Amino acid sequence: MRDETLWWEGESLFLIDQTVLPARYEVVECTDVERLARAIRRLEVRGAPALGVAGAYGMALAARTSRETSLPAFLAEIQEQAGLLKKTRPTAVNLSWGIERVTTRIAAAGSVEDAQEVALEEAHRIAREDEETCLAIGAVGAALLPDPCTVLTHCNAGALACTRWGTALGVVRSAVAEGKEVQVIACETRPLLQGARLTAWELIRDGIPVTVIPDSAAASLMRRREIDLVLVGADRITVDALFNKIGTYAHAVTARYHDIPFYTAAPLSTFDPLRKEWEVTIEERGGEELRTCGDWQLVPDQAGVRNPAFDATPLPLVTGIITERGVLFPPLDMSRILSP
Amino acid sequence: MRDETLWWEGESLFLIDQTVLPARYEVVECTDVERLARAIRRLEVRGAPALGVAGAYGMALAARTSRETSLPAFLAEIQEQAGLLKKTRPTAVNLSWGIERVTTRIAAAGSVEDAQEVALEEAHRIAREDEETCLAIGAVGAALLPDPCTVLTHCNAGALACTRWGTALGVVRSAVAEGKEVQVIACETRPLLQGARLTAWELIRDGIPVTVIPDSAAASLMRRREIDLVLVGADRITVDALFNKIGTYAHAVTARYHDIPFYTAAPLSTFDPLRKEWEVTIEERGGEELRTCGDWQLVPDQAGVRNPAFDATPLPLVTGIITERGVLFPPLDMSRILSP
Repeated sequence: MRDETLWWEGESLFLIDQTVLPARYEVVECTDVERLARAIRRLEVRGAPALGVAGAYGMALAARTSRETSLPAFLAEIQEQAGLLKKTRPTAVNLSWGIERVTTRIAAAGSVEDAQEVALEEAHRIAREDEETCLAIGAVGAALLPDPCTVLTHCNAGALACTRWGTALGVVRSAVAEGKEVQVIACETRPLLQGARLTAWELIRDGIPVTVIPDSAAASLMRRREIDLVLVGADRITVDALFNKIGTYAHAVTARYHDIPFYTAAPLSTFDPLRKEWEVTIEERGGEELRTCGDWQLVPDQAGVRNPAFDATPLPLVTGIITERGVLFPPLDMSRILSP
Repeated sequence: MRDETLWWEGESLFLIDQTVLPARYEVVECTDVERLARAIRRLEVRGAPALGVAGAYGMALAARTSRETSLPAFLAEIQEQAGLLKKTRPTAVNLSWGIERVTTRIAAAGSVEDAQEVALEEAHRIAREDEETCLAIGAVGAALLPDPCTVLTHCNAGALACTRWGTALGVVRSAVAEGKEVQVIACETRPLLQGARLTAWELIRDGIPVTVIPDSAAASLMRRREIDLVLVGADRITVDALFNKIGTYAHAVTARYHDIPFYTAAPLSTFDPLRKEWEVTIEERGGEELRTCGDWQLVPDQAGVRNPAFDATPLPLVTGIITERGVLFPPLDMSRILSP
């Protein structure tokens, strides 16, 4: 087993298949953009930072598998493949960000061969930066955690959502590395159970104590003062709202009601400082994720189902945003975030 | 298919097996207390009012299957069986209430034969009263529903939680019967999915529009003003708190935050006006309900799991309690509730 969630080897991108964990550890090999697009749609790879890295490697795949020899035709194909990849998931901003960073480098290249080389170089750089960023987020965030403490988290903002280490769980890892005693309450995160399956799996692997609860039990644990702080990841942060896995907003409201700090941990690449909440599309996923579980029918056929993948939490409900450059406290001065 | 959730026929209690809905409609026959206790523990029958009726019929079963011929030995056996049945589920107060109403009648009987007769009579009376009570709750509550309106509910407080008609869903049924346009948003209710499986099934059966959502999506629908009011059942109402399915408290807090009315509908038999919240045991159910779904492993073996079946909502968060005698507004004057 490797520490990385996704990595390049030979001429392929490899990723841990997150749909079969924790029952099985399997690796998916993507040799072209189409296979990667399927992996993203099926959530074999997910998590905002990991999607940024996957998008970047996707463009390296696009460049290196292209059969075009003339630069204009090659660049047109790259643009088409970039469009295809961006459409796989609309809410996390990092996917587009990673794709664009590589396509910008490709567009500036003098030849197809040059483009194929710089594309992979840039993707490797983004992956390396992601690791460094997570370690920096961890160091910044660890200082906020009391010792000992119990952290409530939702979905998976861990190593499996990044190249390694993680954002929200990176903060937990860094605090534990500093010698703090931290235990995690992981909301199972319906309907796809990334909390139960992925957060629990990766924390157990690192020997960090973790307890899984139904999403709906979080508020009553807060009332019983069993949670010291809430710590989640982010799929996109606009000037006014945090977009994250459905259920995040409820935790933010109930944390505020109980005077419990509510933090999100995210790289600056997750910020979308020129957009407002209403401009962002919230992905509505297929009803079958709620209707069935394996062979078990849960919802009668004639009943309706709604399955939004994300929700928006107004930033005034967020105590602080833990980034690689420090903690930002709303209201945000986005000019500071945009500056290099 | 019958309208009743449970009924007496011959010398047996029959119940709809709620563990296999909506995939299959099956009926369980209980010929003795032991089989009924298993049905209650396995949640083949559940819901506070239905448990009251089941407990009552359980004591009729105990009386009618007894082989004791001397009255003292017979009464000792009845007490033993009552204890066994009460222990099956600790949180819903109606179960004990139904058991006690019948055992009190048995204790006053002049002979074993007489006891066997009055026990069944009293159980039938409780079942009849439950139907009448639900219809009365429905009439009282229907007046509170705007027309048209969207009601958020949690778990199942419907016909399947009672003899028929239901408490919270009885209010919806009565409003629809009065010609109001009501649609229901049903929280799926992890881990056992009574909302997805049972609430959706029984509303579809009655032609009332219903949409199932993950529990964690309720707050963001409230924020988007898509919910007009929250309406849930109750497993027990003490002088200071509403006990209901885990997740109820989160809905109460988020409803208050969004200024959305939060009602519970419950018969007076659900009140426990001499106890306070801290005196009530919250049932902690087996971890396997969260760890697996069919053959699918959701939580890694080494991770902890917590699975409280209920939570407590302080009454100040409850807008009103819809009972068969009218709506009660907290703070409660329990002396009024205790008076006949």
